[in-house]
Amino acid sequence: MKETKLGMTVKKDDKFGEWYSEVIVNSEMLEYYDISGCYILRPWTMEIWELMKEFFEAEIKKMKVQPYYFPLFITEDVLQKEDHIEGFAPEVAWVTKSGKSELEAPIAVRPTSETAIYPYFSKWIRSHRNLPWKCNQWCNIVRWEFSSPTPFIRSREFLWQEGHTAFATKEEADEEVLHILELYRRIYEEFLAVPVFKGRKSEMEKFAGGLYTTSVEAFVPNTGRGIQGATSHCLGQNFAKMFDICFEDEKGKRSLVWQNSWAYTTRSIGVMVMTHGDDKGLVLPPKVAPIQVIVIPVPFRDADTVAIKGACDSTVYTLNQAGIRAELDARDNYSPGWKYSHWEMKGVPLRIEIGPRDLANMQVRIVRRDNGAKADIPSADLVEHVRVLLDGIQDTLFETAKQKRDSCIEVVNTWDEFVEALNDKKLILAPWCDEEEVEKDVKARTKGDLGAAKTLCTPFDQPDLSEGTVCFASGKPAKTWSFWGRSY
Amino acid sequence: MKETKLGMTVKKDDKFGEWYSEVIVNSEMLEYYDISGCYILRPWTMEIWELMKEFFEAEIKKMKVQPYYFPLFITEDVLQKEDHIEGFAPEVAWVTKSGKSELEAPIAVRPTSETAIYPYFSKWIRSHRNLPWKCNQWCNIVRWEFSSPTPFIRSREFLWQEGHTAFATKEEADEEVLHILELYRRIYEEFLAVPVFKGRKSEMEKFAGGLYTTSVEAFVPNTGRGIQGATSHCLGQNFAKMFDICFEDEKGKRSLVWQNSWAYTTRSIGVMVMTHGDDKGLVLPPKVAPIQVIVIPVPFRDADTVAIKGACDSTVYTLNQAGIRAELDARDNYSPGWKYSHWEMKGVPLRIEIGPRDLANMQVRIVRRDNGAKADIPSADLVEHVRVLLDGIQDTLFETAKQKRDSCIEVVNTWDEFVEALNDKKLILAPWCDEEEVEKDVKARTKGDLGAAKTLCTPFDQPDLSEGTVCFASGKPAKTWSFWGRSY
Repeated sequence: MKETKLGMTVKKDDKFGEWYSEVIVNSEMLEYYDISGCYILRPWTMEIWELMKEFFEAEIKKMKVQPYYFPLFITEDVLQKEDHIEGFAPEVAWVTKSGKSELEAPIAVRPTSETAIYPYFSKWIRSHRNLPWKCNQWCNIVRWEFSSPTPFIRSREFLWQEGHTAFATKEEADEEVLHILELYRRIYEEFLAVPVFKGRKSEMEKFAGGLYTTSVEAFVPNTGRGIQGATSHCLGQNFAKMFDICFEDEKGKRSLVWQNSWAYTTRSIGVMVMTHGDDKGLVLPPKVAPIQVIVIPVPFRDADTVAIKGACDSTVYTLNQAGIRAELDARDNYSPGWKYSHWEMKGVPLRIEIGPRDLANMQVRIVRRDNGAKADIPSADLVEHVRVLLDGIQDTLFETAKQKRDSCIEVVNTWDEFVEALNDKKLILAPWCDEEEVEKDVKARTKGDLGAAKTLCTPFDQPDLSEGTVCFASGKPAKTWSFWGRSY
Repeated sequence: MKETKLGMTVKKDDKFGEWYSEVIVNSEMLEYYDISGCYILRPWTMEIWELMKEFFEAEIKKMKVQPYYFPLFITEDVLQKEDHIEGFAPEVAWVTKSGKSELEAPIAVRPTSETAIYPYFSKWIRSHRNLPWKCNQWCNIVRWEFSSPTPFIRSREFLWQEGHTAFATKEEADEEVLHILELYRRIYEEFLAVPVFKGRKSEMEKFAGGLYTTSVEAFVPNTGRGIQGATSHCLGQNFAKMFDICFEDEKGKRSLVWQNSWAYTTRSIGVMVMTHGDDKGLVLPPKVAPIQVIVIPVPFRDADTVAIKGACDSTVYTLNQAGIRAELDARDNYSPGWKYSHWEMKGVPLRIEIGPRDLANMQVRIVRRDNGAKADIPSADLVEHVRVLLDGIQDTLFETAKQKRDSCIEVVNTWDEFVEALNDKKLILAPWCDEEEVEKDVKARTKGDLGAAKTLCTPFDQPDLSEGTVCFASGKPAKTWSFWGRSY
């Protein structure tokens, strides 16, 4: 541990990219791997992932979604059967050899599993009594992108859940799309404390082969980039047609099912790091912190170290009994000061220090990671105080992030304003004619080193669009307010 | 559901292979997939897997094993760095293309992760204070075997956990090997009700590159084949040398670590199916049954269906409250008889029938899946009776399987006896000189359509080996009693 580089060498506002790499490695979340775009997820990451998974699993169990595991591999025939492969084709990794033998036909590593799954929907779904059909799997996904990879955010392998559902009616499908989207919003806002907008993707940005895509969209002020947080797609009947997924209704009439698919990934963890991290390292929202409270003994020279250790133990015990994730750092080869830095780097929300004076006063000192605020708390009131503090940190992180995000929003009405806001790294809200050709045109006109601008989403929560408002890009009548910007 | 083929068309003792395929598909555990050797794991399988995982996770958490996720892909360089690749080389699937581009170098899909992980052990482990180092991941594994695949048992992709640990001393490593092996025994015997032998693998059969391999070995009487249930390897210092994994002790002296790795897979589920299934379908041990009790209303023509439904609901509620996994099959488009067959096919341990007579007598009828025994139980004593029955079924399944397995054990002392026992599909226990050349020789001499004989393990529980006992195959002095047979 002495070799762990403590402290950050770059500041978040100076060199954001380097800061990000440093914080995820130094906090022991992730390790770079010898294949570009692949990363090792360490316990500090996996425990956050597990905490989110626990929430999401419980929610989809209520919806009667069933657990499945579909194969990693997809045949070329099936993958290429459908329109939507075009969206993924350049990124598909192909297995062509086993041992020293060439395979008869190359086999794809799943970039998403619609094509692996839906031929079997066609087999399993027969009657209206089989509907709704709901399945989900937690698995790894491979997209061999050649744009520059960013840990968590854009990696060649990542972990996700993918839900696939089928309904008798469009109404049911529509309703589920929004129900799932709300769960994704809650993961971002209530767990990761990252503000997001719910909205609908443009025709250009929607899931290839689907009917419409909804998403939660986050924004990274430091880079001025939007980031798609998670997507909930209504696939309509397109895949049902391709794979012949039909059901017989009460009267024996055969109809195509309506389908959805929805996913969120380990990317969410990267967004959380970018949002809350600071110049001391990671800052974790209490709800996803593997350790919420770290207890550190502070023995001075003549102190009763046994009594201090005892007080630390009982503090951890009391907090654990109350359902709070607390741990003791009792290592004797590090100074308290080193430990403070270490756990600040790892983003633990609260630090409790117990020294001789605390012991004498029957109190503990509590220090907040997010703002450094210190307080001496009577040991008797410990649990209650810690609960209030953890809730407070969770709220503060969200509110601070929201204010920062909101201050980046720029409402523009003209092309010139748009270009200026884009250069200023703003999250741009603009009236738009909602035409694919116009989005293509905007992309073409904003091409450059930083990447082109595109739509992020058309938020569900629409400001008034007064009559006569025109599209910022085409001058045609505007149909919606949409978010635009560069994105990850 | 009407399309579900109910009932089995072949008998377990007649055509075991066909029976096995039929039972796993008809019970909705698994679906065949359009890539040979890859299978779809359905909820009935995944829930069993989750129940085992829950147990194992809790146990390894007590051991302070940390969750990780290492990449699916391994570079050719790293994979081929070590001796042990030879054991896997013919089965490695290689990605050589992304989109339409050739990769610069082929990349392996993990057949196991030692080589992906240990370069990072070398980076993370520095001091004795970092030890023991314990990590585990749950992931998918690919071994592109060309021998005939069998669902669960031998598939090209499977799910597993793989633990990787490092210690300062061999003693600690040795101790952990056995601790993990005992967990594997418990999974098989206490959860899956499958009897296994704990033992040590021969030099020929041990993990390539390791020091020694221990395993739990099951046996399938119908095919007369042994099956490796799970393995716990002591890797010694071989990998530490290859990957330079060292630590500094208290005095500053650098030493190589001692390492273990251990894994169990979805194969275990196939062994369970083969062991307990019967001519009516699957038979699930209560501890891993996703549904332990299925409640079926049996309304006769003039019965008070509302009251029956009410009694069914309250039965399910009472059982659920007691922590028993019970469900109601309230579907009105199937007869009770159809439902009986359906849930028998799926192997649910207990069926509760509630009809007008039961209602009048304030009782329920309980039917055991394993032996068909029926009993009328006063509703008031429901929970207690169900608990006793479930425990009884769990025990009976294990005892029955153990008797069957034990009756297959044949002790042989000569080559002729050995060949005869092999032809009789026995689990052979034979005195052996424990020499690699002799095992090779036995393999060569028993080659044939059914596959050659090999050692399964040298059981820890050794019968007396009286002086002068000679090896059944070589005539040299015997060193151990070992299990031999054909295997999966």
